[in-house]
Amino acid sequence: MKTQAKLADGRELFYYGKFADDPDPLTDTRPLQPGQMSSQARYDPLLDDWVLITGHRNDRPNLPPYTECPLCPSRPGRPTEVPAAGYEVVVFQNRYSALTPESGGRCEVVIFSPDHDTSFADLTPAQASLVLAAWTDRTAELSGQAGIRQVYCFENRGREIGVSLSHPHGQIYAYPFITARTSRMLTAARAHRDRTGQNLFDDILGAERADGTRIVTAGKHWTAFVPLAARWPVEVHLYPNRRVPDLTCLTGNEGNEFCELYLDILRRFDRLFDSPAPYISAWHQAPLQSDRNQFALHLELFTIRRSQGKLKYLAGTESGMDAFTNDITPEDAARRLREISV
Amino acid sequence: MKTQAKLADGRELFYYGKFADDPDPLTDTRPLQPGQMSSQARYDPLLDDWVLITGHRNDRPNLPPYTECPLCPSRPGRPTEVPAAGYEVVVFQNRYSALTPESGGRCEVVIFSPDHDTSFADLTPAQASLVLAAWTDRTAELSGQAGIRQVYCFENRGREIGVSLSHPHGQIYAYPFITARTSRMLTAARAHRDRTGQNLFDDILGAERADGTRIVTAGKHWTAFVPLAARWPVEVHLYPNRRVPDLTCLTGNEGNEFCELYLDILRRFDRLFDSPAPYISAWHQAPLQSDRNQFALHLELFTIRRSQGKLKYLAGTESGMDAFTNDITPEDAARRLREISV
Repeated sequence: MKTQAKLADGRELFYYGKFADDPDPLTDTRPLQPGQMSSQARYDPLLDDWVLITGHRNDRPNLPPYTECPLCPSRPGRPTEVPAAGYEVVVFQNRYSALTPESGGRCEVVIFSPDHDTSFADLTPAQASLVLAAWTDRTAELSGQAGIRQVYCFENRGREIGVSLSHPHGQIYAYPFITARTSRMLTAARAHRDRTGQNLFDDILGAERADGTRIVTAGKHWTAFVPLAARWPVEVHLYPNRRVPDLTCLTGNEGNEFCELYLDILRRFDRLFDSPAPYISAWHQAPLQSDRNQFALHLELFTIRRSQGKLKYLAGTESGMDAFTNDITPEDAARRLREISV
Repeated sequence: MKTQAKLADGRELFYYGKFADDPDPLTDTRPLQPGQMSSQARYDPLLDDWVLITGHRNDRPNLPPYTECPLCPSRPGRPTEVPAAGYEVVVFQNRYSALTPESGGRCEVVIFSPDHDTSFADLTPAQASLVLAAWTDRTAELSGQAGIRQVYCFENRGREIGVSLSHPHGQIYAYPFITARTSRMLTAARAHRDRTGQNLFDDILGAERADGTRIVTAGKHWTAFVPLAARWPVEVHLYPNRRVPDLTCLTGNEGNEFCELYLDILRRFDRLFDSPAPYISAWHQAPLQSDRNQFALHLELFTIRRSQGKLKYLAGTESGMDAFTNDITPEDAARRLREISV
């Protein structure tokens, strides 16, 4: 079930699932003025790429105390970004948005649970399925909006990567351009097709399945592996065995198995170190206007932690030259993940 | 003056300038065994790129106490990586090297001063000139070594970007491949030439000089500006007005003026916040086997700090999609840098 509402400053909000109270009050009672939004997509000719210049975001909230969490459900006397007191999953337009009508895109926040102290890894498969349904629905709707070239669903988890709100949530960026990373994948896929007649993503997945040493877990519909040339200390790519361009093309069975496997892998990530690993989880989807039949939906999950108390920093070689070094071999990372009991 | 020596494990070492004592003992007295080096350059087909897998580096020293600094000059009873007790600038092969004979490349350390407590910004113009001479000499020599495709001189400064040794030093990576960043610049430059008949770097520099709003400082031979689509909170690109492929092509006058301007900009970086800004300083040089007449030597300097106590983190959009957001407008960054009195 999906319920649409608006926040006091006009931003859209979408509830997925059921409400705890019926009827739940869905009105945002805050005296909220439209935010100062100044976002430009500027073209960088040197790298043939776009950069979002977002002068208004430097003052956004940073790790507010628990009692001031803007992502918790509203309570009497304490209205938040979510008017409903009891909900399952909710998506709304980000108040501190890197993409705006001015820059031609849109940023949304996806709250995975009303429980401030849980994490994605602690969700039930049914809860994870509802998040997947929200990602899929938002992908479908944003894909139809004028000017959008690519829809990106992702989660940043952990202070170490700069997460400014600890309530379990992810984000969706609907870009007005094709990102540099996706462009590189498409260029590589086109060159591979011209050279071999094959699809690059199919061949990568096939090679990993044939080799097996870097497979973390595999089901009937999905395969999770550490890539041969992983950039991050522990990095897992999760591919559906049947190539599809984006989330909207998954079957119900594929979606259900994804949730099982993804929860299993996230729980392994939580047990890699003495404390849960900070991570970035990134859904790679086909761009909307071209190359849809060449691209393969997949999820890339990685931590920046290389051992308890030590982070992988992006310094001169990575940030200056985009040349990554990885101190943990992909085979070691896969073995460690497999050996964790969950 | 350049003096060559070897460390106990066979690594090469080069002194530039004069010694404090004459003759200075140049023998490494440590019982040092050759390090465990395992470095592979692995090809990533998905991004058509190379990643260095360096299993041996996870145990390298991390911020040892002052008294154990391996980059300080050796003293009686405390031998370090630098046998000479008094020197000006020294370069040696990195013991914890991301590039090795196995991966087909080489990593070197450049110590800017024997003084543990100084920084590049505090060097005299004469000291900076000697560092520039060392970068230039190493670029020339590494460019001639078999299999090297690109030479990269850079400095990481500050714990916030993961610098593991606080003694003022930089590094040189001699890559056996063309890095992704350089490849993207070359692709953009070729497309620009095909489209306009002009050189991309010349046109970018010319546009910034004509516009002027993002110029930080300019001399007779060099121009420093914040690029129109800067990715980092404060980012400065320093170009020679005469396009050259790499450091070995600079004239003496160009080199001297670079040192003046660079020291001026580094001192402004030190005063941007309450404490000196962490930074990455990256020399972009032409690749060795191709496109040398299309590329323009330039230096890119940037800090990851966006305000006192707040860092720019690379999270989902940057690390997942290579799509940068910058909360400080380039025009503001240029104005702030100009307004600092040094």
